[in-house]
Amino acid sequence: MVASHLEMGMLSEGLTQVLIPAAALVGIAFALLQWYLVSKVKVSGDSSGDYSDKLIEEEEEGTDNLEISIKCAEIQNAISVGSVSSFNRTGLIHPLMAFRACGATSFLLTQYKYLIVFMGVFAAIIFVFLGSVKGFSTKSEPCTYSKGNLCKPALANAAFTTLAFLLGATTSVLSGFLGMKIATYANARTTLEARKGVGKAFITAFRSGAVMGFLLAANGLLVLYISIILFKTYYGDDWEGLYESITGYGLGGSSMALFGRVGGGIYTKAADVGADLVGKVERNIPEDDPRNPAVIADNVGDNVGDIAGMGSDLFGSYAEASCAALFVASISSIGINHDYTAMSYPLIISSVGIVVCLITTLLATDLSEIRDVSEIEPSLKRQLVVSTILMTVGIAVVSFFALPSEFTLFNFGTEKAVKNWHLFFCVTIGLWAGLVIGYTTEYYTSNAYSPVQDVADSCRTGAATNVIFGLALGYKSVIVPIFAIATAIYVSFSLAAMYGIAVAALGMLSTIATGLAIDAYGPISDNAGGIAEMAGMSHKIRERTDALDAAGNTTAAIGKGFAIGSAALVSLALFGAFVSRAGINSVDVLTPKVFIGLIVGAMLPYWFSAMTMKSVGSAALKMVEEVRRQFNTIPGLMEGTVKPDYANCVKISTDASLREMIPPGALVMLTPLITGTLFGVETLAGVLAGSLVSGVQVAISASNTGGAWDNAKKYIEAGASEHAKSLGPKGSDAHKAAVIGDTIGDPLKDTSGPSLNILIKLMAVESLVFAPFFAAHGGLLFKFL
Amino acid sequence: MVASHLEMGMLSEGLTQVLIPAAALVGIAFALLQWYLVSKVKVSGDSSGDYSDKLIEEEEEGTDNLEISIKCAEIQNAISVGSVSSFNRTGLIHPLMAFRACGATSFLLTQYKYLIVFMGVFAAIIFVFLGSVKGFSTKSEPCTYSKGNLCKPALANAAFTTLAFLLGATTSVLSGFLGMKIATYANARTTLEARKGVGKAFITAFRSGAVMGFLLAANGLLVLYISIILFKTYYGDDWEGLYESITGYGLGGSSMALFGRVGGGIYTKAADVGADLVGKVERNIPEDDPRNPAVIADNVGDNVGDIAGMGSDLFGSYAEASCAALFVASISSIGINHDYTAMSYPLIISSVGIVVCLITTLLATDLSEIRDVSEIEPSLKRQLVVSTILMTVGIAVVSFFALPSEFTLFNFGTEKAVKNWHLFFCVTIGLWAGLVIGYTTEYYTSNAYSPVQDVADSCRTGAATNVIFGLALGYKSVIVPIFAIATAIYVSFSLAAMYGIAVAALGMLSTIATGLAIDAYGPISDNAGGIAEMAGMSHKIRERTDALDAAGNTTAAIGKGFAIGSAALVSLALFGAFVSRAGINSVDVLTPKVFIGLIVGAMLPYWFSAMTMKSVGSAALKMVEEVRRQFNTIPGLMEGTVKPDYANCVKISTDASLREMIPPGALVMLTPLITGTLFGVETLAGVLAGSLVSGVQVAISASNTGGAWDNAKKYIEAGASEHAKSLGPKGSDAHKAAVIGDTIGDPLKDTSGPSLNILIKLMAVESLVFAPFFAAHGGLLFKFL
Repeated sequence: MVASHLEMGMLSEGLTQVLIPAAALVGIAFALLQWYLVSKVKVSGDSSGDYSDKLIEEEEEGTDNLEISIKCAEIQNAISVGSVSSFNRTGLIHPLMAFRACGATSFLLTQYKYLIVFMGVFAAIIFVFLGSVKGFSTKSEPCTYSKGNLCKPALANAAFTTLAFLLGATTSVLSGFLGMKIATYANARTTLEARKGVGKAFITAFRSGAVMGFLLAANGLLVLYISIILFKTYYGDDWEGLYESITGYGLGGSSMALFGRVGGGIYTKAADVGADLVGKVERNIPEDDPRNPAVIADNVGDNVGDIAGMGSDLFGSYAEASCAALFVASISSIGINHDYTAMSYPLIISSVGIVVCLITTLLATDLSEIRDVSEIEPSLKRQLVVSTILMTVGIAVVSFFALPSEFTLFNFGTEKAVKNWHLFFCVTIGLWAGLVIGYTTEYYTSNAYSPVQDVADSCRTGAATNVIFGLALGYKSVIVPIFAIATAIYVSFSLAAMYGIAVAALGMLSTIATGLAIDAYGPISDNAGGIAEMAGMSHKIRERTDALDAAGNTTAAIGKGFAIGSAALVSLALFGAFVSRAGINSVDVLTPKVFIGLIVGAMLPYWFSAMTMKSVGSAALKMVEEVRRQFNTIPGLMEGTVKPDYANCVKISTDASLREMIPPGALVMLTPLITGTLFGVETLAGVLAGSLVSGVQVAISASNTGGAWDNAKKYIEAGASEHAKSLGPKGSDAHKAAVIGDTIGDPLKDTSGPSLNILIKLMAVESLVFAPFFAAHGGLLFKFL
Repeated sequence: MVASHLEMGMLSEGLTQVLIPAAALVGIAFALLQWYLVSKVKVSGDSSGDYSDKLIEEEEEGTDNLEISIKCAEIQNAISVGSVSSFNRTGLIHPLMAFRACGATSFLLTQYKYLIVFMGVFAAIIFVFLGSVKGFSTKSEPCTYSKGNLCKPALANAAFTTLAFLLGATTSVLSGFLGMKIATYANARTTLEARKGVGKAFITAFRSGAVMGFLLAANGLLVLYISIILFKTYYGDDWEGLYESITGYGLGGSSMALFGRVGGGIYTKAADVGADLVGKVERNIPEDDPRNPAVIADNVGDNVGDIAGMGSDLFGSYAEASCAALFVASISSIGINHDYTAMSYPLIISSVGIVVCLITTLLATDLSEIRDVSEIEPSLKRQLVVSTILMTVGIAVVSFFALPSEFTLFNFGTEKAVKNWHLFFCVTIGLWAGLVIGYTTEYYTSNAYSPVQDVADSCRTGAATNVIFGLALGYKSVIVPIFAIATAIYVSFSLAAMYGIAVAALGMLSTIATGLAIDAYGPISDNAGGIAEMAGMSHKIRERTDALDAAGNTTAAIGKGFAIGSAALVSLALFGAFVSRAGINSVDVLTPKVFIGLIVGAMLPYWFSAMTMKSVGSAALKMVEEVRRQFNTIPGLMEGTVKPDYANCVKISTDASLREMIPPGALVMLTPLITGTLFGVETLAGVLAGSLVSGVQVAISASNTGGAWDNAKKYIEAGASEHAKSLGPKGSDAHKAAVIGDTIGDPLKDTSGPSLNILIKLMAVESLVFAPFFAAHGGLLFKFL
């Protein structure tokens, strides 16, 4: 029974309708302000006041400032115009820069072609499958949960789900595109600011990351909000149908992440592994050396994988968690009683998150200043802690004002009474579990602690022990995150069933703007270092950009842990929503249908990882052969007198990433469709649970193993302690063993590991969207047997 | 309701009581006959008729036959006496041999000390926990399933379970000990027979393997049968209590496998990795080179890991599958109606299995002859196919004669009517799934097929791509086995609930005698090669022993696949028995208690693997430092003029294996106890399901990755094709990369991978044994919250 009294929260419906879009618009305005502040760093050569700026602390030794500024201006132009011909016309631009910009843009343009085809085909599939649930009838149906009322026809749901899918996909692509734009826009500016001091450079890189973070969080919220408002003009009081259709938004956002994470992951690592194998191992030339033909493809890959990939992944999580929470709420007393404010609770949480992240960002950019390289990493980590603490207060306020003090939730066929403070605990435990996972990831991947130092030490006895210790480290690093996730699940599940899980996931993602800002900061700093190298800047400047980059590696690891943790919670929430929508009341392991789903589902992450790793391996082998060919056949290449053929390497990465993402992509997209259609919803529920509990382990261990190898290598290279010095220097046997580990880790940490987030989330959201079809027509095989 | 009519099968109770022990005794007699036949190969120097045997096809070139025979006699004596002092007294024995025997024996003796302490402590825990279920009351209780009857007190069940535990443990240890004895007994004889031709050597090695296989299968059956008979004198008609107590036998057998698989696995790989890292990689000396100080520890390890480890693992599976089947049957209409023959169905299947394997063995030893090395591998694989086909007929006969045409099974609170031909399908699908898994494993690990050849090819670009491709291969290799297991589970689960799963596992294990024979054949041939090397035999003889060894590698891989597949089915059967015994009627993923169990359970294989891999890594590092120290400080060692200090290396492996198995052992043994006591049976059920579905993937992928790297290296070394030649020869860059992969694979395929079998089985059987305690007193934490 629904709650007998229609008690509402204190926040009025009108205020809610103002608050959400206002927060989103503030977020967008803040992002644009940050962009404007970054753009004040002038890079054009003719603005002569620039390099005589009083803030420049040290002059470049023996390098012409005017020349550097012109070079940077050209890089800037190259990146914004983004085509080879334009550089050739100017005749000035360094060919490296030309290909760099060309590579990123050509990758995106080629991707977009495939994206449009994919979106079109999949939109058609959604429409046909969901439309067929009631045989394309245009008649209204009695509602499933809101007894006695009429709901819109299944055909309308099919149409609106398709529309929501396209909106989600477009928002995700747009956010990724803007992220790449600002990242490439900020590289050169960060490099130039590094001349004035590390603090200035830090703020430039961080502001640019904030642009990406806030644009993505605010756009995601705004488009979702507007979609609900618009859909409501058709659906009216049929909230069941409304929020069922809105799930398409999550599917759209997540399916674009398939391109960003999987395609981008293959792109970046094929280039990186290929560049390292010949450059560092065989030819003994440093990273980012312009003599290496694959160096441009590698730099482009940083943007493609870390900015577009991570952004689309977290955007997908955010969209899916919101949709799962909204759907479960819509079939609970909140939805059935049409309590608009309580219904909007997930969106209000996200709105408050934007404001909290805004305040937190000011702390790094305006309220404190970085004076020394040692302050960078603590400053970035402080962002996480401060945003988490502030958000906890925010959640308490929202839970008190937006929710009725007690209401009932749908809990797989039964009903569950919850209080508003229950939900406060659900959201908060998700938020803090994210912080625990982030810090654990840092412990296992930063070379400041013993795990990575032990791995570095094992390099003494060669590459084999390095790999054995690294794999063992990755396996071990799953323990604490899994206990954190399990605790979050137990608390939120017990307090508020599947709605609790969904809002716990939203809690973890509520500080997404800050999380993405410090994550995007990494590749921006990385590329700034590359530009310093290419523009021939002094050792001092490169040391500063290297320090920025080192801190970025740590935050990137934290970000990855965070992405996996949220993916686990999100897919559990989606799983719960799917089960509710499919009308299953229990998923009993003690039935053969479920158990075979569970064991096959647990196998899928392995199958998927085998595909993505093989993809990277194959593409890297091609790259290696191309780089070797160039070194062997182009005279003067090693001496630096002749330029390599960068374009061919970029082409190999682009082609490989698009061709090689088809099999893993097909596995993800087809598994729910085939399982649901042939084996039915119980087996599909087993598959989702199995792939979730198994995939999260593979993802965490793969990411952390790779991160640990990367930093073990950096530990030996930096030689900052007596222990590290005893293993080095660069080129020692221990260092060579560390480089092998780093190379193996590249596909693990940047392709196969993070791609698993997409596997577990996308299969779950796809099952949720297609649930009505599977429930109506699924399980064909068992029906015939 | 129980079946209203008391229909019985056609096989009378009296005949059943004769048939089972008769089959077991025939198996033991056959094993002893094989041992006698092997012992006819004389190795003592004074039997001068031996080396003038007319069957010797070729004389040794330039080697004194008498001297060789004397050396082999000494090896033989050394192994049977087994102490350093005795060799020193003779003054004749090659020091290598002395330490070889000393190493194996000292490992076993040290192990046994720990074993006895462990058995004592754990027996006490079992007695106290189970005795406390009804407060150590000595009063009879009403039966749970056999309504209206009185069952024996819980205290009696505690006592008999403890007794069964000790019997199971002792049988397992005895079988392992005899296996090691015959293996070390057969090495030298295989080497000597290799002088007469490859066929003779093959038969000697194979007969010795058969001794191990038949002794283990027959002993396991006989002790179980006798225990049931003896327990029955106390229990009388209380079959519930009787078969509840018998589950202790499975726990005993399986907990000894912890020592064999985990301890043995750490031992063998610490030595192997240590020997390879310095010997092959740094010093460029071949395998089994007596100059390498770790070579003896490595050879001892082959026996410890592959013979004792595999034997105790499969013995555990066999004992557990039998106990799970018997327990489920005892609470079904079969047990409640006291149908003795139908109740003994699992034991009759095993009895027929012994006879089938006996016939199959004759095919290899007496009905055909190996004339060329190319016939070895097909002959071994034919053993598997023939035993599977014959066994299918045997199962049909047993199912028809031993079972009533229809009866009811217990199915988690409900009852399920099954027919005898349903059970035929259950057992048969398990049997054939084992064959599919075996052949898939072979496809992914044999260098005759493209997967391993691709891995070998990736060595061209160095160790990193080799590792990436190898990991991807392992991940991919889980697909077919998981589908085979899932199909077996679906069919047997649907037809006969958890009883179906248990007998499917027994079906897979019914040809265990043949499986173990061809598995034990591997290390025997391996050591025969080592002896040929050490006794200074000619190149021709070593080529023959190498051919025997190569075939053994393939069958070892098949055996590992088989062990994992059966472990999966067995632990599912135990899981089902546990759930039945704990009185749970559903394990619903949609409850927080179960879900957190599921995700934490899926994490355990990673935690466990991290421990075992780290153990091997740490022990190997110590070994590497010791070997390096000896090479650096003992003058004349590299030149072969001075002997290394083998004893120190053996000591390092022995100490490491015992010390390092404590943490993983504690994880396995304590997890069910802690989870059951604090979180209760639902969460424990989740943990078991999670660790099963996740562990089987990690185990298969780890074993196959390691096997593939091993054979990729062998592929390059052998250079048998144009492609292989282009990668070699030994010492080429590609070969060095392959050696790194092989070294990484060693702990994966011989320690962490196979150890997971123990994790998933032992946790399940322990839960089953302690189920009454958890059901009565478990879940303390949730009770207090």
